[in-house]
Amino acid sequence: MGRFVTFEGLDGCGKTTQLAMLAKKLRLESPDWRVLETLNPGGTLLGKELRQIILEQRQESSPPSAMAELFLYLADRAQHVHDVIIPALQSKTVVLCDRFTDSTVAYQGFGRGLSNAMLGQLNSWASQAIVPDCTFLLDAPVELLLGRLKGPKDRLESESFSFFERVRHGYLDLARQYPERIVVLDASQSAEVLSELIFSHLMTVLTPAQEK
Amino acid sequence: MGRFVTFEGLDGCGKTTQLAMLAKKLRLESPDWRVLETLNPGGTLLGKELRQIILEQRQESSPPSAMAELFLYLADRAQHVHDVIIPALQSKTVVLCDRFTDSTVAYQGFGRGLSNAMLGQLNSWASQAIVPDCTFLLDAPVELLLGRLKGPKDRLESESFSFFERVRHGYLDLARQYPERIVVLDASQSAEVLSELIFSHLMTVLTPAQEK
Repeated sequence: MGRFVTFEGLDGCGKTTQLAMLAKKLRLESPDWRVLETLNPGGTLLGKELRQIILEQRQESSPPSAMAELFLYLADRAQHVHDVIIPALQSKTVVLCDRFTDSTVAYQGFGRGLSNAMLGQLNSWASQAIVPDCTFLLDAPVELLLGRLKGPKDRLESESFSFFERVRHGYLDLARQYPERIVVLDASQSAEVLSELIFSHLMTVLTPAQEK
Repeated sequence: MGRFVTFEGLDGCGKTTQLAMLAKKLRLESPDWRVLETLNPGGTLLGKELRQIILEQRQESSPPSAMAELFLYLADRAQHVHDVIIPALQSKTVVLCDRFTDSTVAYQGFGRGLSNAMLGQLNSWASQAIVPDCTFLLDAPVELLLGRLKGPKDRLESESFSFFERVRHGYLDLARQYPERIVVLDASQSAEVLSELIFSHLMTVLTPAQEK
């Protein structure tokens, strides 16, 4: 089996940049490793369509209800796990995934107020119960992250300040629940410093896997 | 509260025709009744997009996995219940719906082999636990119904004969479990005879509601 690494945090935290920097470092470190960069939602063709439906700002229709939004994310995740993540892990790939089940708990649970017990069960069904080997949570104050967002906002980026505060609180709560898996990093640091921290931590996760 | 009536059965059984004929009869019977004709999937703008994603035959990508397909149906249902069905019932409408939770059990459970316990829980979450007052199951042998389908087949209509046999068996199993709610009718009868049977049964369900 490969290794499954996820990146979590609010929009603007630098997840996507850090994921790309880590992939580059891993490929330089060992050209033999297979490295896959992917994302939730949007890691399959179905997921790309759903991502558009979930995130676009619509004038002509009411936005998805909290439950409909949740099931769209889960449809994306089920397809992504089935078509992409599990086959990659089976072929010994290091899978780097932008958002996974923790996003569902932070956004739909803490953000929208859906039941955490229900979300735990749904996440497990949608992901075939696979759990990341390591999760990097890039944390920073909401006001700092909102200031970083450029261009027109999508539907989720247009949520209220208090929504994002609840999501941040939810992420930190998850990190306290799963301290072995979730590494919390200060996202206000420079991208280069953050990238070094992530790479060096990941080496402690990957090296035992390589020795097997 | 209004009354919630669903139509179930395999494609080709005449559900859609019977639903329209019943709506017409109800409006003639009493012009004061509010009657809403709607469908799963596709009863909202979101649902129409999802219906297309679920049913279209794709060349360029793998079809949705069984779990992804299930979550797409549930997203449609959650939005439909939230935006359409519950508001209509609250305004005392007779809601006639083409497919609902029984389709999920028959197709995804008996047809695709997903766990019925899981589907029961998911149906309840997606539908906010609303249950039809009356369900008409239009039943006929699979070979008869397949012979009725015209034109190019969508992704679900292209399933195997044994898939449809399992779905039919699933529907009849549900009817045995919920004999008070589900009325099984022989779909090989003429549309006019069937429509009379449906109308006269429904009057026994609606009249007490009108007296309240």
